[in-house]
Amino acid sequence: MDEFDIDDIADPELEEPVLVEGLPGVGHVGKLAAEHLLEELDSELVRRVYSTHFPPQVSVEDGRTQLACAEFHAVTPEDGRDMLVLTGDHQAQDNEGHYGLTSTFLDIGEAFGVEEVYALGGVPTGELIEEYDVLGATTTDDFGDRLEDAGVEFREDEPAGGIVGVSGLLLGLSDRRDLPAACLMGETSGYLVDPKSAQAVLEILQEVVGFEVPFDPLEERADEMEEVVRKIQQMEEQNAPSPADEDLRYIG
Amino acid sequence: MDEFDIDDIADPELEEPVLVEGLPGVGHVGKLAAEHLLEELDSELVRRVYSTHFPPQVSVEDGRTQLACAEFHAVTPEDGRDMLVLTGDHQAQDNEGHYGLTSTFLDIGEAFGVEEVYALGGVPTGELIEEYDVLGATTTDDFGDRLEDAGVEFREDEPAGGIVGVSGLLLGLSDRRDLPAACLMGETSGYLVDPKSAQAVLEILQEVVGFEVPFDPLEERADEMEEVVRKIQQMEEQNAPSPADEDLRYIG
Amino acid sequence: MDEFDIDDIADPELEEPVLVEGLPGVGHVGKLAAEHLLEELDSELVRRVYSTHFPPQVSVEDGRTQLACAEFHAVTPEDGRDMLVLTGDHQAQDNEGHYGLTSTFLDIGEAFGVEEVYALGGVPTGELIEEYDVLGATTTDDFGDRLEDAGVEFREDEPAGGIVGVSGLLLGLSDRRDLPAACLMGETSGYLVDPKSAQAVLEILQEVVGFEVPFDPLEERADEMEEVVRKIQQMEEQNAPSPADEDLRYIG
Amino acid sequence: MDEFDIDDIADPELEEPVLVEGLPGVGHVGKLAAEHLLEELDSELVRRVYSTHFPPQVSVEDGRTQLACAEFHAVTPEDGRDMLVLTGDHQAQDNEGHYGLTSTFLDIGEAFGVEEVYALGGVPTGELIEEYDVLGATTTDDFGDRLEDAGVEFREDEPAGGIVGVSGLLLGLSDRRDLPAACLMGETSGYLVDPKSAQAVLEILQEVVGFEVPFDPLEERADEMEEVVRKIQQMEEQNAPSPADEDLRYIG
Repeated sequence: MDEFDIDDIADPELEEPVLVEGLPGVGHVGKLAAEHLLEELDSELVRRVYSTHFPPQVSVEDGRTQLACAEFHAVTPEDGRDMLVLTGDHQAQDNEGHYGLTSTFLDIGEAFGVEEVYALGGVPTGELIEEYDVLGATTTDDFGDRLEDAGVEFREDEPAGGIVGVSGLLLGLSDRRDLPAACLMGETSGYLVDPKSAQAVLEILQEVVGFEVPFDPLEERADEMEEVVRKIQQMEEQNAPSPADEDLRYIG
Repeated sequence: MDEFDIDDIADPELEEPVLVEGLPGVGHVGKLAAEHLLEELDSELVRRVYSTHFPPQVSVEDGRTQLACAEFHAVTPEDGRDMLVLTGDHQAQDNEGHYGLTSTFLDIGEAFGVEEVYALGGVPTGELIEEYDVLGATTTDDFGDRLEDAGVEFREDEPAGGIVGVSGLLLGLSDRRDLPAACLMGETSGYLVDPKSAQAVLEILQEVVGFEVPFDPLEERADEMEEVVRKIQQMEEQNAPSPADEDLRYIG
Repeated sequence: MDEFDIDDIADPELEEPVLVEGLPGVGHVGKLAAEHLLEELDSELVRRVYSTHFPPQVSVEDGRTQLACAEFHAVTPEDGRDMLVLTGDHQAQDNEGHYGLTSTFLDIGEAFGVEEVYALGGVPTGELIEEYDVLGATTTDDFGDRLEDAGVEFREDEPAGGIVGVSGLLLGLSDRRDLPAACLMGETSGYLVDPKSAQAVLEILQEVVGFEVPFDPLEERADEMEEVVRKIQQMEEQNAPSPADEDLRYIG
Repeated sequence: MDEFDIDDIADPELEEPVLVEGLPGVGHVGKLAAEHLLEELDSELVRRVYSTHFPPQVSVEDGRTQLACAEFHAVTPEDGRDMLVLTGDHQAQDNEGHYGLTSTFLDIGEAFGVEEVYALGGVPTGELIEEYDVLGATTTDDFGDRLEDAGVEFREDEPAGGIVGVSGLLLGLSDRRDLPAACLMGETSGYLVDPKSAQAVLEILQEVVGFEVPFDPLEERADEMEEVVRKIQQMEEQNAPSPADEDLRYIG
């Protein structure tokens, strides 16, 4: 196997597509958002990317295995621009892998004619969120202005530690290719899987890219999470031990 | 030395062989099972694989040294298909090594005409086992059906974390070569070397591949292990300190 | 992206330039000193160096992103020799990166005709400093003598652990190219960002390279740091909790 | 710089030389023994080996720096065979470095016509040693017999964990080149620098290779170490705190 190995599964024509990335990260915000697009809109698997920088691992579902990979789906909503959506269960396990995978992702994007890149993610605040702001960072002033008009917040020194992993590199490496890129970061406590933060990010993306998705499934999931939070708070009030991580992850 | 370096030791003709892997892992189930095949059936060392991704280490036996390696034996039972059995004391020490070594293993298997791959291992349950079930995962539905007929259990979301290391990659990378592969995972507590779990896995393999081995040595070893467990339980009841890890490993 | 990737931004002619390195390290002494040169003297960004051995990260300032990199500025003071000043926010994340980046830095330096290398840094003493000595290490006796005349201290077995990271390798790899190199290490407690130690290092560099900078901004920053130290001492006397690291860093 | 970079410093003709390795390890036994040879016998520096797998570090002595490296000296005693002695302050920092460096070391040895390899080291027993046995491991039975005649101990399952690092690989990789190799491991507590163990190893090497060295300096150092041990024991009897590691290292 090569260091970065691409399976070509389909080659639909896309019109002025944008690349939308939602890999695992804080509060699973990006991943939830990207997967929501795949579930609610017309989508077709077009590429799988394998890499020796992913964990040496297969996932198992109903007894069938799937080698660790990242997937690209072509998403073609009725309104708005086409999207190439990047999802998966893994980030690279080392620096060289991060750089090499992100380059590979951008190569694939450019092969499909991608003209803009959106990295979706969460930014941890350390406290439960009342109003879900979406923080932004971009490679160009133009792109920043357009996002600001759509309601994205830009703050002087945030996020303080910069942006790490694939999301950060998508911006850094796009910039070196003169491909405009933005990161949309939903505020999230950082403690729980956060469907509300994912919805806030998608609402921005909807406006900027111009499609429409129903949010019912995300809202249901958000209700479930709130139920979990309520139970934890009750337990803490009663000094009872909190439910195992296992449970949270399941409901999450 | 090359990154992956193969010593050709013998080149017997094998008939429709299957590849059987038993490297170190949970409960040493795969390793015990594979070594049991080598001890009880006609076998011949055919390949040694060295790698800069193995630990920088020689083992010493009676004052003679052997560089860290993996070994392939040709096993030709009277009944059933020929087998190419992969054993050793080490797994790769990094991701690239895992991917590269597993590719090398499959190259060797394909050079011998291997038509199916069986990765043997254990799956930890966290509690002492009464009835030794064998859990399965495969790359194809066909293979899965055949194993299910032989008594292998397939469960919706198990193993939850997928399969990692060489066993996982043997399935993942075989799949990319269109080579049918399965993982047979004996349930085991995860705390002790487990010859009974190894026997359960071998009983399935026997039926599917079609050979026969005596199980007396594994049973004797299982009796020894049970004796160890009994002693530990007695000691715990008496609040005495448990025997040192050293002892367990020796008897194990 | 290549393992080491250089952006050519400007190519001014420099006269007999010296290379001055100030990357992050103990007390941020080298970084403070190098950045002070850029702020107080005429300087021009000439090269950016990207690497897959840097963290996979962008920094964000006012919503715009910058991929992790090291920067070279040409500094041309009115008096004294020209300087090529190397700064940045990161060191390499692994051994190969350290060696490869330092080689790349020296390649750039030699392309600009650099004739001498100065690595700036701090050496931790573990206690608050009264008088700020500057410790030295060089690749040649000649260079050592010149620095000793300028007031640099050379001690038999210091620094005991040698010099690690880019500063150490700049000397080790310059030596292999027959390029004279020195490390100037300002004594510092090791607990706080230390502008006074940076000033002590710059005073030596001023004398050896022959330029002049005002020190007011460093002195102001030093006063701020002393204010911080005073507050911490007061708090400790009152058994109050010390201010969060966050605050220190901000003021630092 | 290349991954493995060799400086040719001198090229004396050696007669049927043996390679003797003494890099840092348990009780510094190998390093003490090899350095003792360099101090007491005629020796000439012939090669320096640099590597990106060594730490990114220079050592500093009297203000002059030396990049991390391993060194080969030609040692030509009046009696006995010539020796090529390998010393240094570092082992490789990763697996690939261990394999690559050891291959480089053997390439250099073979270029000088080396016919046998001796890796010197210590084997920790966990208790203070009364009689300093030397444990052996070899790549061939012949070599083993010769060492056994010279008083080396060969034990069924020792060392239990095999031999790791350069010493282990020197045997493993020599074996693959059909170059006879042995490891001489002096028993040592594992807690202190152990000149007596180094002497025990050298006494064997003396007999097998056929040279003679005075042991006075090692004996003096051993006396110093015994004095240290005595003081520690006294302190422990008086319940006083033991001296800092620093002191031990200095006297060691």
